[in-house]
Amino acid sequence: MEPSRGSPDARPAVTLVAAVLPAGGSGERLGGATPKQFCAVQGRPLVSHTVRAMERISWISNIIVVVSPENIETMKSIIEKYGHKRVTIVKGGITRHRSIFNGLKVFAENEFSNHLLQKPEVVIIHDAVRPFVEEDILSKVVMAAKEHGAAGAIRPLVSTVIASAADGCLDHSLERARYRASEMPQAFLFDIIYEAYQQCTDYDLDYGTECLHLALKYCKTNAKLVEGTADLWKVTYKRDLYAAESIIKDNLSQQVCVITDVKEAVVQVGSLLQESLKSQIKVEAISISLSKNDSHLLNIFSGWCYNFVSINDKKYAIQETQQLVDLLEKSNVPLLYPVVLISVHLDTSENISFSIDMEELARIKKFAREMKKKNILVYGLFIKYK
Amino acid sequence: MEPSRGSPDARPAVTLVAAVLPAGGSGERLGGATPKQFCAVQGRPLVSHTVRAMERISWISNIIVVVSPENIETMKSIIEKYGHKRVTIVKGGITRHRSIFNGLKVFAENEFSNHLLQKPEVVIIHDAVRPFVEEDILSKVVMAAKEHGAAGAIRPLVSTVIASAADGCLDHSLERARYRASEMPQAFLFDIIYEAYQQCTDYDLDYGTECLHLALKYCKTNAKLVEGTADLWKVTYKRDLYAAESIIKDNLSQQVCVITDVKEAVVQVGSLLQESLKSQIKVEAISISLSKNDSHLLNIFSGWCYNFVSINDKKYAIQETQQLVDLLEKSNVPLLYPVVLISVHLDTSENISFSIDMEELARIKKFAREMKKKNILVYGLFIKYK
Repeated sequence: MEPSRGSPDARPAVTLVAAVLPAGGSGERLGGATPKQFCAVQGRPLVSHTVRAMERISWISNIIVVVSPENIETMKSIIEKYGHKRVTIVKGGITRHRSIFNGLKVFAENEFSNHLLQKPEVVIIHDAVRPFVEEDILSKVVMAAKEHGAAGAIRPLVSTVIASAADGCLDHSLERARYRASEMPQAFLFDIIYEAYQQCTDYDLDYGTECLHLALKYCKTNAKLVEGTADLWKVTYKRDLYAAESIIKDNLSQQVCVITDVKEAVVQVGSLLQESLKSQIKVEAISISLSKNDSHLLNIFSGWCYNFVSINDKKYAIQETQQLVDLLEKSNVPLLYPVVLISVHLDTSENISFSIDMEELARIKKFAREMKKKNILVYGLFIKYK
Repeated sequence: MEPSRGSPDARPAVTLVAAVLPAGGSGERLGGATPKQFCAVQGRPLVSHTVRAMERISWISNIIVVVSPENIETMKSIIEKYGHKRVTIVKGGITRHRSIFNGLKVFAENEFSNHLLQKPEVVIIHDAVRPFVEEDILSKVVMAAKEHGAAGAIRPLVSTVIASAADGCLDHSLERARYRASEMPQAFLFDIIYEAYQQCTDYDLDYGTECLHLALKYCKTNAKLVEGTADLWKVTYKRDLYAAESIIKDNLSQQVCVITDVKEAVVQVGSLLQESLKSQIKVEAISISLSKNDSHLLNIFSGWCYNFVSINDKKYAIQETQQLVDLLEKSNVPLLYPVVLISVHLDTSENISFSIDMEELARIKKFAREMKKKNILVYGLFIKYK
């Protein structure tokens, strides 16, 4: 939940970093009609999860999403619906390499794009179907690319790799410890990977898949290999969508959003709560005037968070809570899992009138019973605060 | 649900087939304290799902589960709790190869076991953490082993495989199309794999993992490679447990168990229902005298099925339904997902007294409302049957 602002340690010491996300796959291996990058995971297309993972990193200036021509409108609507920033959509080619090459061209070829983007020093290449990429590995491959010209994440092999003979029998098996699986993200000095793509053959563009290989073959650049975490897997099969769904659900349940109105005393309590919670759970605190600006809240409700603490000092807290629930219902959050909404009413007044509080509590209880049917669990909390 | 009885086509033309399931892994990559083969998936340890996949195949005579010494009692209790048959537990070694070797010894070395099992012609080696193995692939590897001496399932590589140089940089990447991932099940003529294990070095036993490699190295047997389906993946990481959970849930929702008492007219209706349903959903029909024998039902309830049709001709169908619900609650089926129980009351009498039926219906409706709170969805159906 907490947006990464690029901590000083993690920010690579390079001028400009861009990212290219090929998202043109057909999803054949998934066995469904929808390409996997557009499959809904927790109510949001997979590609949106990946774009969000990239846009949380402040030092990535441009995110190029390359989609096949028939999916450009779909991608446009995803960007609009989920409020993605810094994203440029580029029309893909018929293979992965051709799509990545198209993505790189927006930084280099005037005729290809009517809005030539500033050429980055380093370009990250990642997959739209790997939604769990973290700042740490992105930073590592970018810094290694700056030093070596190219870098890529690797993982241990899960299965033994074998070569078969022409008769369909085992020829030999590879010693597992000597080999690694090449994963994403990868990063390159822009000039190196762009030159590699300009030089490579049609055969490479049509049958190759590995950018590290192109950098080695055409630019004599031996990529630095960076051990990645187990999160870097690619959604390939239907079972991977199931896994992604569960992981995102798990992550969401470990995040909480503290919502306050804009009054100083209330914002202060929100900050105190954030401070005391942040060692145990990811917290985002937002101050918002509910009636005026709800697009930010709508975006948060749209599947990024399932736990909310709303703090206010209104006499009738239930109105505030009702507004939040309305917004929740307006958003497209799938209520498969319970949403928890804790409504905290701060009483900053001098007079001690518990009878009124009790009445308010009774109303909230009744409201909560109704909301529970919608899988929204509402709790009320009254705090005397001076 | 429907137990495979080894269809004539699928049954390999070999005398005796046994299976060895190494289940000694520590589950380090899973990041949890429980080894993955003992992690609960839909309320049942993963190894139990895999054992069940094997014991459904009638032509597998013995299933040897090899577990580390500290897990022998756990494994015994799993076999007892879930009613597994044809299973022998063997104490594993400190590596995968040593465990498999121990598993093979129960067929060959008198001193190793006090109950020497009949030596099979072909032995299947599978993993305890691959629960989705089907009869088709088992039959294929067994038949190929009979012909070639050894055989193993393979899958396309998901990622490019690379070799790194000593400096941690890319040395070369393998052409993905020329290589395959070696998966399970594998099958061997018993004499070949046993000889390979007898001849192999301590280094092989301690650092190797690939049985096909041993058969090639020590018995000059080039295993036949059999393309497997995407189901053959191995539970390695936590995300794989999530995926297994979802897949098993999916499968369960596509299975129905038709329960009848033992009266001829009722059994007949059960058979008719099974016939008409079986093209659309997996159906198992069982005839049972509820009060007498409920261990079989308990086993079915224990997570193998979520949909039940109970057919009876009792005057008060609700008693029968209540008994089933009691059994359901006694079983350890996790009621995370709704269980559907359709109670069908056959009226075989001549007189048409709809008023009584309506009263019964009203009682079932009330009962159903109560049960819904427990996530058991009860439906009643009255049929005039002559």
